[in-house]
Amino acid sequence: MATTAASVAEICAGAKRASRELARLDTVTKNAAIGAMADALEARVDEILEANARDMEAGREAQLDASLLDRLLLTRERVAGIARDARRIVALPDPVGEVISGYRMYNGLDLRQVRVPLGVVAVVYEARPNVTIDCTALCLKSGNAIVLRGSSTALHSNTVLASIASEAVSAAGLPDGAVSLVAGGGRDELREIATQEGIVDLIIPRGGEGLKAALKEHAKVPVIYAASGNCHVYVDESADLDDAVAITLNAKVQRPSVCNAAETLLVHSSIAPSFLPRALGELRESGVELRVDERTRSFAGELADSLNEAAEADWATEYHALILAVKVVDSADEAIEHVNRYTSGHSDAVVTQSQEVARAFTSGVDTACVYVNASTRFTDGGEFGMGAEIGNSTQKLHARGPIGLRELCTYKYVVEGSGQVRE
Amino acid sequence: MATTAASVAEICAGAKRASRELARLDTVTKNAAIGAMADALEARVDEILEANARDMEAGREAQLDASLLDRLLLTRERVAGIARDARRIVALPDPVGEVISGYRMYNGLDLRQVRVPLGVVAVVYEARPNVTIDCTALCLKSGNAIVLRGSSTALHSNTVLASIASEAVSAAGLPDGAVSLVAGGGRDELREIATQEGIVDLIIPRGGEGLKAALKEHAKVPVIYAASGNCHVYVDESADLDDAVAITLNAKVQRPSVCNAAETLLVHSSIAPSFLPRALGELRESGVELRVDERTRSFAGELADSLNEAAEADWATEYHALILAVKVVDSADEAIEHVNRYTSGHSDAVVTQSQEVARAFTSGVDTACVYVNASTRFTDGGEFGMGAEIGNSTQKLHARGPIGLRELCTYKYVVEGSGQVRE
Repeated sequence: MATTAASVAEICAGAKRASRELARLDTVTKNAAIGAMADALEARVDEILEANARDMEAGREAQLDASLLDRLLLTRERVAGIARDARRIVALPDPVGEVISGYRMYNGLDLRQVRVPLGVVAVVYEARPNVTIDCTALCLKSGNAIVLRGSSTALHSNTVLASIASEAVSAAGLPDGAVSLVAGGGRDELREIATQEGIVDLIIPRGGEGLKAALKEHAKVPVIYAASGNCHVYVDESADLDDAVAITLNAKVQRPSVCNAAETLLVHSSIAPSFLPRALGELRESGVELRVDERTRSFAGELADSLNEAAEADWATEYHALILAVKVVDSADEAIEHVNRYTSGHSDAVVTQSQEVARAFTSGVDTACVYVNASTRFTDGGEFGMGAEIGNSTQKLHARGPIGLRELCTYKYVVEGSGQVRE
Repeated sequence: MATTAASVAEICAGAKRASRELARLDTVTKNAAIGAMADALEARVDEILEANARDMEAGREAQLDASLLDRLLLTRERVAGIARDARRIVALPDPVGEVISGYRMYNGLDLRQVRVPLGVVAVVYEARPNVTIDCTALCLKSGNAIVLRGSSTALHSNTVLASIASEAVSAAGLPDGAVSLVAGGGRDELREIATQEGIVDLIIPRGGEGLKAALKEHAKVPVIYAASGNCHVYVDESADLDDAVAITLNAKVQRPSVCNAAETLLVHSSIAPSFLPRALGELRESGVELRVDERTRSFAGELADSLNEAAEADWATEYHALILAVKVVDSADEAIEHVNRYTSGHSDAVVTQSQEVARAFTSGVDTACVYVNASTRFTDGGEFGMGAEIGNSTQKLHARGPIGLRELCTYKYVVEGSGQVRE
């Protein structure tokens, strides 16, 4: 277990060596190791809780706010949940070895494009110690070695979790170096990981804007960034009113702190008189602050006085809170244009009964996940049937949307012949 | 045609606007535009040759070397060849709209993962004016707008070629901004393109190490780098001797200046006595300089005195010339280890009759294209049946190996429902 005095470069080199072996392992061996890790977590729960108690105490002393402390906290139930989530990864199909395409070339060469692990995946994260195990299970299942760098706030918890994981998978036959935690959660370690060119194959940041900014400044190895989500719901003139209200409410209110929650509501002017008073009323009843343009206010009836004025910045803001910006538009095209101007490319929805509008919206909106008559809240590896996700990408290259087992892989071309040479 | 006084930012913004329309175009319209571009090239060949003559004259005055001048030169035949290559792109299947995966979710939502254009692709390149048209045809077919930045050496040629392309595709109904050339081939323009975050979706560099280094320093938008190829041929103890000699010769000699040519030959010690004297003799006869380890020399018989000594640096060098490094190994595992240490991840081959060795090599070697009993020279979009390539990636993310029409796309999830909300 490489949490001791080994340098970051040594840890990454060890992970690279391990990755060569991991890439060749069969599914049964990988599944057994992940299962052994889950068992070990439950067997050693007391150690975990003890370490976590030290982090919690330090956190309280440092006066971390309540929500951070809650994210840091582990309980017997939460550890059982982490083990259960790992066992779910066991049940997922192995992405390694999948033939993406294959054919015989004109000269008799047999070509296969085969899914293979990336190699070494580094996950840099803040608080939430469960990430240690979730990401380890996903990386091992996809044949990758993992290098973890958590935050200093959760150092004791992460150290014990990573030790348990590393020991359990080694005992189950995985190579040393398959799971490593970089001791210390500082920016120096981050910079060192981010410059291991040719060794670390991918960095996945799970944390706030400061973490991403540090990576953008220093990273020489590939990073998949997840923008938070500035998500939209557009209610078209042809929308079913009940669906439109239910989807708007769900997208905003069901869990406002997450990145697939809606931040802006766009409403076609034809449906505004019937839709807006009802929708705004229900949103207000759910405690949502509304920031609206002038036309929205004109349709709001007796609610008009309770609405705030939207400023330009509101269209671009991801509140992650019970706040919604609302604007009236005169056409689906205007809605599409607005979305393309302001979306962070995460999830955007249209509510419409028009096939033409649905097609225009799904093909015209440049975003990872486009919804027709459904809430934006479904963007999630688990909901999508990918079993779990290590993050959610708003980039267009490699992975877009939930990052699951397949997205933790690359491919290679394997070309087999009988002596072919090029003319 | 945006070769005039428009700023780089304006050109890229225009390309972004065009990309929204291009993404929705049907295949027939895109094909007609590419065909019209090919026709226009032939109809306006005199203009092209006149502009090229000015570049050639300036190149001779600047005392460019002969190979650079040859790459710059356009002739009537070469222009006809460029038009023919563009028409080949017309014949390829359209990648846009392809459903990569799709299923009904547990709650009745219908999910499709659909291939869509990236948006704006910038190609930055040196010399070879044919790149202007090749890359334009590939980008338009895949629904992307293209921003071209050629080198100042070919400015007159590129300007005319891009004008002809832009005018022809506009006349065929494509939006203005679909094809743009950034005037001036300087590093300032490169830096400006490379920092158009959210506007330029991908940069593909086609040029030397200086160009790549400049991008690595400045790029804020995604870049797919193509390393040159340090490619290997490993001749296993079980190799068919005739195949081994033919493949080695072909991989080294057939076109030594390209990135899929072999730079290092690894030979199992058991087959070295029968293979090496013959292979080294034929390589010498083809004018290949041989840089060998001591064991190779010991098997070389009367050729021993004509061999140079390999230094450590030779294993890592991409000669792109008639030079080959040669080393004897004692096992397939040693060969795999050597390859993984030195390969640039482009193309590596094993010659073997052993199924076990073939499997070990193809799964163990971490490279884009692995060959069994075939020359490394087949790594090429055209050879692979992808029709053409815009480059060749040695990265692991997004695209690995030849970058064709599919690799110029991303995907989005389109999720259609009937009012589903998340519980």
